[in-house]
Amino acid sequence: MAYYVGVSALKSLLRETGLSSFVLQLVSYLQHDFAAWDTFEKSPRLASHSNVGVIELMPTANNALYSFKYVNGHPVNTQKGLLTVTAFGALADVETGYPLLLSEMTVLTALRTAATSALAAKYMARSNSTTHAIIGCGAQSEFQALAFKATLGLNTVQVFDVDEAAMQKCAANLAPHGIQVKKCNSIAEAIQGADVITTATAAKTRATLLTADMVPNGVHLNAIGGDCPGKTELHPNLLAKCTIVVEFEPQSRIEGEVQQNDGLRVTQLTDVVTGKYTPRTSETDITLFDSVGFALEDFSVLRLVYDLVKGKEAYQSDLIPHLQDPKNLFGIL
Amino acid sequence: MAYYVGVSALKSLLRETGLSSFVLQLVSYLQHDFAAWDTFEKSPRLASHSNVGVIELMPTANNALYSFKYVNGHPVNTQKGLLTVTAFGALADVETGYPLLLSEMTVLTALRTAATSALAAKYMARSNSTTHAIIGCGAQSEFQALAFKATLGLNTVQVFDVDEAAMQKCAANLAPHGIQVKKCNSIAEAIQGADVITTATAAKTRATLLTADMVPNGVHLNAIGGDCPGKTELHPNLLAKCTIVVEFEPQSRIEGEVQQNDGLRVTQLTDVVTGKYTPRTSETDITLFDSVGFALEDFSVLRLVYDLVKGKEAYQSDLIPHLQDPKNLFGIL
Repeated sequence: MAYYVGVSALKSLLRETGLSSFVLQLVSYLQHDFAAWDTFEKSPRLASHSNVGVIELMPTANNALYSFKYVNGHPVNTQKGLLTVTAFGALADVETGYPLLLSEMTVLTALRTAATSALAAKYMARSNSTTHAIIGCGAQSEFQALAFKATLGLNTVQVFDVDEAAMQKCAANLAPHGIQVKKCNSIAEAIQGADVITTATAAKTRATLLTADMVPNGVHLNAIGGDCPGKTELHPNLLAKCTIVVEFEPQSRIEGEVQQNDGLRVTQLTDVVTGKYTPRTSETDITLFDSVGFALEDFSVLRLVYDLVKGKEAYQSDLIPHLQDPKNLFGIL
Repeated sequence: MAYYVGVSALKSLLRETGLSSFVLQLVSYLQHDFAAWDTFEKSPRLASHSNVGVIELMPTANNALYSFKYVNGHPVNTQKGLLTVTAFGALADVETGYPLLLSEMTVLTALRTAATSALAAKYMARSNSTTHAIIGCGAQSEFQALAFKATLGLNTVQVFDVDEAAMQKCAANLAPHGIQVKKCNSIAEAIQGADVITTATAAKTRATLLTADMVPNGVHLNAIGGDCPGKTELHPNLLAKCTIVVEFEPQSRIEGEVQQNDGLRVTQLTDVVTGKYTPRTSETDITLFDSVGFALEDFSVLRLVYDLVKGKEAYQSDLIPHLQDPKNLFGIL
């Protein structure tokens, strides 16, 4: 039986589960899967480029489950009031090849990105952290705020965006979730006293949101927006001061903040969650999770959604025919 | 707006459209797309192998539309009463990257395989053909019979299968479609007087269903079952007598009947439908369509299904969120 989770079904599921509970479970699924890193087949993405964008298939698998995500990237879409990125994906049973779950992933991608950030921060941020600064109030911002509240208890968020309306939207969305949002007039104001700083801006350029002199000792940086070649948010002099963790080094060297300097030392998140490597060795270290997104995270979130919908009739689909006689496919017509 | 077509929706659609009409439209869509062969991006399949099977993603695109198919191959599934092959896929808009259609493709694959065979036969079989022999009454057999009736008017099918029940199933399924099925006791009996011979058996081996001395002049061979390395149905001495057409030469050299002899000359179907090459030059030629299936055929059938469901509310889905403000993804929760 394959399940189908569209946007409205996902909303029901998140309401049933509770958004914070979903995020906490997802952090735990991610922790499990990142710890089992070596058991995963890490395939290259299969990209189809046009002159306005790209469509990619991102598969991964372990010996029990297979997943892939369809995702597009079309910067021009914003001019048409459309999303730059949309996504959907599937989870399948390796033993039979049957799909188990087909799901929307536009929302799930935002959730898994935020939960991965929160997982990294559990190991990297100071344990007495209370204040979260978010630079860039785009589509990802509230998910980050929510994940850090659920996981690390960061109830206060100081935000900055060049677009006042975006800050307003962020504050309005987060109020019902018990997160206090302070709108700031500058990056400097937003990061004032912050223990964790998330950068999540949209401009596809070599931006400099933060330089070394702006960031005090002890801060954890969660850099989300630098996620493709030519798109970064942090100045190289700041990178040079950080203890850096990435998802998958070969990909991050091309797409992450660390694309700016091949000489930077990086550690993979799997080594952090398994305890092989301790990124924070003092209260004064500046740590950086340089996130670009990885297929394993899609696998984890699909696995969680499947576990949550399994056995629930409301989510069942007829994606695959069920035949009494496998030779009699025509008979179902 | 993305549309979703599961098995029950496809059944409704085929009932609305009429099965023969659907096949005829599909032959026309295939003809159009094979004629535009050079405009397609022909990507390699992305395969994930386990010790019991394979899961593949098969993408293709032209400058307007992108498609991919998820398909598994698990021979052991038959022991569990499951399908060896299941499939689903999607069609997307290259301009925006938005998916347009998500569909079951277990049934659609059978339909597109049969329609591709019929398209090739339009150019390759003798125009006065009346009788169709089918060797192997598995899941594909009725689809082939139906497509040849719709396209070439072949109302009589002579079938042979080692499994009497499979022949019975085939006859029962085809009777309501005005196709007369004659069950035979041997391959030799089935091909007696046949103008078109379809081979569609399941054994993954170098089988010899037909040899050169069994096949009279003028016959068109439609070889479906030889579709992966190590799986063929025709004797090399028969291949040597045939004018051979394939879908995509590099793939057919590995997966088709022609894997048996690199020296055989083959022509691609695109050159046939564009009139660059005439496969039948006399009433006595023996022609062979050596079909293995190709991503372009999935593209064509998804394109047809999309054109048929477009604008019909019953097939609409909520795969992709629709936002007033693209920055406000969180707002939909």
